Amino acid sequence: MQRDNFLFITHRRPDGDTIGSASALSQALREQGKTAYMLFNPDITPRYAPFADDYWAADDYIPEHIIAVDTASCQLFPTNADQYKGKIDLCIDHHASNTLFCALVCLDGEIATCGEIIYEILLSISPSISAISAERLYVALSTDTGCFAFGNTTANTLRVASFLVEAGAPHKLLNKTLFRTKRRSRIELESMLDACIDYHFDGKVAIATITMEMIESSGAVEDDLDDISAIPGSIEDVFIGITIREMTSVRDCKISVRSLPPYNSGAICAHFGGGGHRAAAGASIEKTVVEIKEDLLLVLAEIM
Amino acid sequence: MQRDNFLFITHRRPDGDTIGSASALSQALREQGKTAYMLFNPDITPRYAPFADDYWAADDYIPEHIIAVDTASCQLFPTNADQYKGKIDLCIDHHASNTLFCALVCLDGEIATCGEIIYEILLSISPSISAISAERLYVALSTDTGCFAFGNTTANTLRVASFLVEAGAPHKLLNKTLFRTKRRSRIELESMLDACIDYHFDGKVAIATITMEMIESSGAVEDDLDDISAIPGSIEDVFIGITIREMTSVRDCKISVRSLPPYNSGAICAHFGGGGHRAAAGASIEKTVVEIKEDLLLVLAEIM
Repeated sequence: MQRDNFLFITHRRPDGDTIGSASALSQALREQGKTAYMLFNPDITPRYAPFADDYWAADDYIPEHIIAVDTASCQLFPTNADQYKGKIDLCIDHHASNTLFCALVCLDGEIATCGEIIYEILLSISPSISAISAERLYVALSTDTGCFAFGNTTANTLRVASFLVEAGAPHKLLNKTLFRTKRRSRIELESMLDACIDYHFDGKVAIATITMEMIESSGAVEDDLDDISAIPGSIEDVFIGITIREMTSVRDCKISVRSLPPYNSGAICAHFGGGGHRAAAGASIEKTVVEIKEDLLLVLAEIM
Repeated sequence: MQRDNFLFITHRRPDGDTIGSASALSQALREQGKTAYMLFNPDITPRYAPFADDYWAADDYIPEHIIAVDTASCQLFPTNADQYKGKIDLCIDHHASNTLFCALVCLDGEIATCGEIIYEILLSISPSISAISAERLYVALSTDTGCFAFGNTTANTLRVASFLVEAGAPHKLLNKTLFRTKRRSRIELESMLDACIDYHFDGKVAIATITMEMIESSGAVEDDLDDISAIPGSIEDVFIGITIREMTSVRDCKISVRSLPPYNSGAICAHFGGGGHRAAAGASIEKTVVEIKEDLLLVLAEIM
């Protein structure tokens, strides 16, 4: 392998899969004597920063090979990656919706996590995987599958996770930090959210609200809101779980909808100019929580 | 294999590991043309009943071979198993504390779940594992490791889970039911519990309370209380998480303590006549919640 001086680009609002995948690749290449960095991601949160901090490129770094990781389209690049648009050599991704925005695309649209693809690539670079790379890949696999509990988890995800633990990924510590620890502010916000859930249509619909006041009084930060909109949909016998969140003002709200068959979250959100998938979708609405609830109940009355 | 007419005994207050292990064994033996049943467990809860219902022995069933599963001592037998004490042919278990209460013990005290031992046994009975047995074993592995998030999870747990999914275990549905669904009563109880957590010693100690009134007003049943005492200890920067629960009266309480090093839950509970491990312990105390909190803070003041 003659190539050198790599730069990895992660996606906007980075999650564990993009950060874990890019940092594992950077680490593995460095272990082969190569120079490898990640483009700084201005959206990085404290949850994932520890896994990326060793790899951020200096501003004057001049890469030879630019690789996008876990990124379905260059519209998902962080803003500081604009300079690299049109110059991406390779994209490694697992989103079936990938726009094939560069010459070479390594894509498996069926695989649960990008980390699983990176695992195979690392094994083609070196016969073994270091404990550090294994740690980063474990972050990728575990966070993208909710610690192997989400519906995207496959036998392959579990198989690769087993090898990563064997290779030294500190899975106990990672699980404790990533899945079994909640910030005090998250606990307080969840308590308020749980208390304000209201049920409609024989308990088949649950609607929760997150107001700016709740976020302020709990002291919640963006990391605390991670996946919180899954709560109403995770209640027994609820088919449609909706979270209404005030963003910057009481008339600037976002709804998140999660649903089970036969209901279609995307269709519900389309009524409000939003979109998404059958199981999960969202929309931004310039109305108050009370107004949105009224509108939602009208839309739902037609569906239920 | 000439033996036939098996009876499996599960432990008191059965969890997914004992039920999943015994039902997988029963199923696999039946697939080999054998007669195999589980002794009815009067403590079975709705969470695990669906995995056992096909295997409960009739009252007049006369077994030839009696096997205890996931049971460290015959004191952990359900009361209706008294008739079989001293008549157990084999115990299959993963508790290092196993009292070796019968002639033949198949014990691996290092393995995360009894289900992993059963997996190896099933492969020795038959070259493949049926989808039904795989489902039962997936219940065993996943519930005993908190869906692979608890500290007991090993590379082997993940490896076996991967094979079970490959063999047809419906892991998506099981994960949704077992780990990603909360009853409305659980949500309400958690909301109340979260709201009443108080913090001491610079936030290093978190104490939650579950009163009989909270249980009544939320409508919570025993399944809803599963693992709820883990909540205070799962809060960031908390080293000692304590839950005080009123049992049958306001002066009949149980405390559950979870701690991180250097603190010792067992030592804290020993002050109240209880016991357990370093990381998790409990005690029964005949005082009110308020009195217990006062006592606890005095004990903790010495330790912190």
